[in-house]
Amino acid sequence: MQHFLSVHDTDNLSSLVAEARQLKSAGVPKIGQDKTLGLIFFNPSLRTRLSTQVAAQKLGMSVVVMNVDKDGWKLETAEGVVMDGDTAEHIKDAAAVMGQYCDVLGVRAFPTLKNRAEDYSDRILHSFVRYAGRPIVSLESAIRHPLQSLADLITIEEHKTVARPKVVLTWAPHPRALPQAVPNSFVEWMKEADVDLVVTHPQGYELSEDFTKGVTIEHDQNRAFAGADFIYAKNWSSYQDYGQILSRDPSWTVTAEKMALTNQAKFMHCLPVRRNVIVTDAVLDSPQSLILPEAENRTWSATVVLKRLLESL
Amino acid sequence: MQHFLSVHDTDNLSSLVAEARQLKSAGVPKIGQDKTLGLIFFNPSLRTRLSTQVAAQKLGMSVVVMNVDKDGWKLETAEGVVMDGDTAEHIKDAAAVMGQYCDVLGVRAFPTLKNRAEDYSDRILHSFVRYAGRPIVSLESAIRHPLQSLADLITIEEHKTVARPKVVLTWAPHPRALPQAVPNSFVEWMKEADVDLVVTHPQGYELSEDFTKGVTIEHDQNRAFAGADFIYAKNWSSYQDYGQILSRDPSWTVTAEKMALTNQAKFMHCLPVRRNVIVTDAVLDSPQSLILPEAENRTWSATVVLKRLLESL
Amino acid sequence: MQHFLSVHDTDNLSSLVAEARQLKSAGVPKIGQDKTLGLIFFNPSLRTRLSTQVAAQKLGMSVVVMNVDKDGWKLETAEGVVMDGDTAEHIKDAAAVMGQYCDVLGVRAFPTLKNRAEDYSDRILHSFVRYAGRPIVSLESAIRHPLQSLADLITIEEHKTVARPKVVLTWAPHPRALPQAVPNSFVEWMKEADVDLVVTHPQGYELSEDFTKGVTIEHDQNRAFAGADFIYAKNWSSYQDYGQILSRDPSWTVTAEKMALTNQAKFMHCLPVRRNVIVTDAVLDSPQSLILPEAENRTWSATVVLKRLLESL
Repeated sequence: MQHFLSVHDTDNLSSLVAEARQLKSAGVPKIGQDKTLGLIFFNPSLRTRLSTQVAAQKLGMSVVVMNVDKDGWKLETAEGVVMDGDTAEHIKDAAAVMGQYCDVLGVRAFPTLKNRAEDYSDRILHSFVRYAGRPIVSLESAIRHPLQSLADLITIEEHKTVARPKVVLTWAPHPRALPQAVPNSFVEWMKEADVDLVVTHPQGYELSEDFTKGVTIEHDQNRAFAGADFIYAKNWSSYQDYGQILSRDPSWTVTAEKMALTNQAKFMHCLPVRRNVIVTDAVLDSPQSLILPEAENRTWSATVVLKRLLESL
Repeated sequence: MQHFLSVHDTDNLSSLVAEARQLKSAGVPKIGQDKTLGLIFFNPSLRTRLSTQVAAQKLGMSVVVMNVDKDGWKLETAEGVVMDGDTAEHIKDAAAVMGQYCDVLGVRAFPTLKNRAEDYSDRILHSFVRYAGRPIVSLESAIRHPLQSLADLITIEEHKTVARPKVVLTWAPHPRALPQAVPNSFVEWMKEADVDLVVTHPQGYELSEDFTKGVTIEHDQNRAFAGADFIYAKNWSSYQDYGQILSRDPSWTVTAEKMALTNQAKFMHCLPVRRNVIVTDAVLDSPQSLILPEAENRTWSATVVLKRLLESL
Repeated sequence: MQHFLSVHDTDNLSSLVAEARQLKSAGVPKIGQDKTLGLIFFNPSLRTRLSTQVAAQKLGMSVVVMNVDKDGWKLETAEGVVMDGDTAEHIKDAAAVMGQYCDVLGVRAFPTLKNRAEDYSDRILHSFVRYAGRPIVSLESAIRHPLQSLADLITIEEHKTVARPKVVLTWAPHPRALPQAVPNSFVEWMKEADVDLVVTHPQGYELSEDFTKGVTIEHDQNRAFAGADFIYAKNWSSYQDYGQILSRDPSWTVTAEKMALTNQAKFMHCLPVRRNVIVTDAVLDSPQSLILPEAENRTWSATVVLKRLLESL
């Protein structure tokens, strides 16, 4: 594995999941000793920040953390610009320098939700790939969150009760405009996995066809839930009417009543979750909820990915 | 030791102090290797941040640090609420997740000084105890600062010249409203220790009876100082007129003249200290001042506590 | 080496550079195990933050990082003051405490650019030297940046093609008022090294004579560039008209045309660099640019300095 940016960076999904589960049960070899992981945050992070540090330390790596805007300064991403404004350093220089100090770099960079073409170019992430000269791990980019999706897949593998479960990704309401990174990535990974994927959301919340091409879309949430083995809830803002909130319809909140329509489905969410907005307390605090095992698997998705990158150094 | 939240988490105070002093003189065993300490700060910290990290590293532990509001987002603490406001994650979920990533968690969460019942419920700390599933160390909560009090007690043991010293906790002026955590905790620990405790403060600054029941209160500072072996100065805001500053009376500042009333007492303060407001330079910079040995003992209180928690894992 | 504050803390510059290069090629001994480096930032940092952490970890040291204003509170630097304002702790107390927790301390503290006498007293740095009781490494003070200068000298040694190269420090325009620390330090180091130093800048940008006494100053940039082997560009604000921007003249920007006046000179800058303001993309992205090797050498200047300080403990 050269980088970890999307599902396309792994050639064999089931072997990656199997290795993650094996590391989880059998322990982690300290193959990262004398290697440094740099974690670069352009945006806030809790689970990713902690789970990736813990994963690196399990592998014996040293970790350095950089909160770019708070600990450093604003980076320029445009090419050829006269930098007489508020950006103090070009990302190509910052990325190249950080690549010299670290053996592997993780980068978190959210979208603006203002300019779709700009966001979907995933420029910050790709600048690191291009200029850092090191393996890059996406810690959630403008359009994907692959460490989350891999943790989701590990969780589904651990908890499925049928060979090919029905997995439903459902939009749910939220007071703020959120990125499409988690649902994009989830769709991308589930398409490659041995599951039946259905995506349900209100009209206008269609994700980019680059991700959903060939996927079953169902605008009736109740019909989508019928027979489901896993319900994966997430809010996102509109892709077409880019970055806008088109609905806050509380009838899309996941409730115990809706969970009763499923095949005793497990409930999943990547966290942080707005309780009683995305999903009710009754569902989150029920035995059907997998939010904690799913969060714990963030450590194991990070561990297996870092291990693969270290092996390719 | 299951948690370290107050003096009540230790069954034998003198053996805890003795072990801290023994670790200090004889070295620290690396019993924390392959264990992770998570330090979670809801508020600023200098001594606690550094001394706890150093203590953990002496024990061989890895440390991850999370500044909740700055590196992450606002946490909800109320139960059953519809989270459509400015809190992005419920503390029960955040605590449970952080508990999965770390073997021991330290938590710092100050009071609001606005709602006494709310503050004295110590809700953030107890949410971690309830939901994290891991040993919790208080790094100063809304109402207690036990790592400080243990360091204070170690310092008194090291510097006392009589078997049962007279220890005076004196209120002193300060321009801002401060929590009662340090004095509450100090009283709680000194009551269990082999000392004669006297608390002196202006009228209206009575601490909660939950802490001071049975303790000698003396409103005349000079009379309190007479014959004292240790003067422990600290400002706090009013408990009765909750969170208010009732006095900035400079006659309560600790001066060389007042120290002359004592039995050549040592001077203590937990730091940070406002020089020439709480206490004059002349006292702080005199040989009687123990502020530096006291701060150094923060490492040793953290070391012995983490060691005890690791031994109980 | 007792401290690392300026070139005067090293008795033999060429042996220091030689050892840095030797560590770079032959590997770093883990002589810092069970030692802690505290990094104290009063100001933002990217290269210094990461390269110093990486250097310490190569030596086997543990690192704790403190962003003073963000993670802690404001420190008082004046002596004898009544601290009833916005500073919560005196630097003498904070420095002494941090010195107790760490074996070596690194300190970054920029100038205000408002009060020259105050800035040039370098009070924060010297307070740490005076009160911490530990070796202090300057991570860039109000008036010097010696880790940068040492990295610059290592880079010049690695890339020079004549025994005694001509090295030109040139002022270049910038939209904001910047400190004189980097040029002051560069001049101080180059004067001790085996190079011919020329400094060029517009009228009014003379550096303090404490640094430039005896150095060739040339106000015609083109004439200065003639025959140069190294061009070192940097902006600084005026020393005489203290902290002011006297010129934004774009004719001082380093361009390919100006580089053509040199003896195929290498281009250097300490980064972050404002592209197309300080220097054009054409120069920065040419094979003549040494900005990346120079930044990489920050790790090696920090490594050799920390090693020397550890050896003196």
